[in-house]
Amino acid sequence: MIAKVRAIIQEKESNLCVAADFTKCEKVLDLAEKIGDEICMLKTHVDILEDFTPDFPKKLRALADRQNFLIFEDRKFADIGNTVSLQFGGGIYHISEWADLINAHSIVGEGIIDGLKKVNKNSALILLAQMTPEGNLFDESYALKTVAMAQENSDFVVGFIGSSDRPEVLAKIRAAAGEDFLILTPGIKLSSESDGLGQTYNTPEKAIQNGADIIIVGRGIYESADPISEAEKYRAAGWNSMRKSANE
Amino acid sequence: MIAKVRAIIQEKESNLCVAADFTKCEKVLDLAEKIGDEICMLKTHVDILEDFTPDFPKKLRALADRQNFLIFEDRKFADIGNTVSLQFGGGIYHISEWADLINAHSIVGEGIIDGLKKVNKNSALILLAQMTPEGNLFDESYALKTVAMAQENSDFVVGFIGSSDRPEVLAKIRAAAGEDFLILTPGIKLSSESDGLGQTYNTPEKAIQNGADIIIVGRGIYESADPISEAEKYRAAGWNSMRKSANE
Repeated sequence: MIAKVRAIIQEKESNLCVAADFTKCEKVLDLAEKIGDEICMLKTHVDILEDFTPDFPKKLRALADRQNFLIFEDRKFADIGNTVSLQFGGGIYHISEWADLINAHSIVGEGIIDGLKKVNKNSALILLAQMTPEGNLFDESYALKTVAMAQENSDFVVGFIGSSDRPEVLAKIRAAAGEDFLILTPGIKLSSESDGLGQTYNTPEKAIQNGADIIIVGRGIYESADPISEAEKYRAAGWNSMRKSANE
Repeated sequence: MIAKVRAIIQEKESNLCVAADFTKCEKVLDLAEKIGDEICMLKTHVDILEDFTPDFPKKLRALADRQNFLIFEDRKFADIGNTVSLQFGGGIYHISEWADLINAHSIVGEGIIDGLKKVNKNSALILLAQMTPEGNLFDESYALKTVAMAQENSDFVVGFIGSSDRPEVLAKIRAAAGEDFLILTPGIKLSSESDGLGQTYNTPEKAIQNGADIIIVGRGIYESADPISEAEKYRAAGWNSMRKSANE
């Protein structure tokens, strides 16, 4: 999966992942179709959709295949192995049928990876090594234990969520993980600010400088009146920062 | 909500919470009806139900009201405030409409509590201070920060998930939290064993001795051929241990 991600990034000159945090299926599909050519991944929260039907992942999968982007279902699994097996493979959503990437909290221990792996079909796993909100309890020791857990399961885990808010820890994650894992950094906006619920933002340049392979942009694009031109701006900012960083 | 929980425990002489980890609505409702008189809470995973319809929480709510037990939706929210608002209040499940109790991971920081609170109607929140699986990354410092977060939000947070596997940490959680918060301990079986996916078990007696107010029993009851008589055994074991512990 890492090779596939890297190939898409190079081919589309895009390390941009866009969060499509809408509550109606049609809006997600509409955004995906509009910006599909600009992104390497679309990040979904299938469980916030008020009108979800099994048709939704089918349509989204078709768009992803046609426009050559990956689907990252941001489920943040966080339960014991037996439960996450059922949440990932079953329920109403059958996430294992359509997601290229999923993520999970390492706090539960390796049983969560085993539980997801047990029902996995073609997805790869991202572990949360850091998050951006103020007052979060992620620390360096936690991040490095998460990296070790990923290394023990490199047949399934392909990367980490890492935060630009603590670049010194992110640098250690990168040093420990090497280039065999991707780092995805959320909370990206061209202008830095906060959302009043503890979420803070960083710019694409800062995130890439701090070690991100992929930048995750949410409200900066999906809440924009002109998501296509915003996506193009973020794609260019992310790609140019990556090229610059590679040449340094 | 704490007063309500304690009143139900006294009235029904039950500190038993049963997990109903079925993948069909009818099986959850059937179990709830059979053992409803023996329990103070039923723990649900609404997102593992393959045939969920909005009718399910309505029927479960009616049973809960008739048989005087609380519904604890074990969603383990673990995302930023803005996302958990949507996951709790919206989506297909509308958990905020029918759950008496929900839970969340404190790792995200206080923003997760704010996000849940923002759309809350009548639910109370349990924070995960510990979990039972092998190799988990919960430690003492994390648990005590979680207690502090609960104390800052005691208008909404009513308790913790605590584990009998690390009684020395659980004792510190109790000491820090006092009697103003409930401790719920999962992973309870009359016979101790492991499930092969990292989950370990403790007996009701051990859990209560270690500070649990409520014991959470899963496979010991819902996988039993005779859940009614098993529930009665666990109810008696939990209640007798609690009375014994109160008299010591």
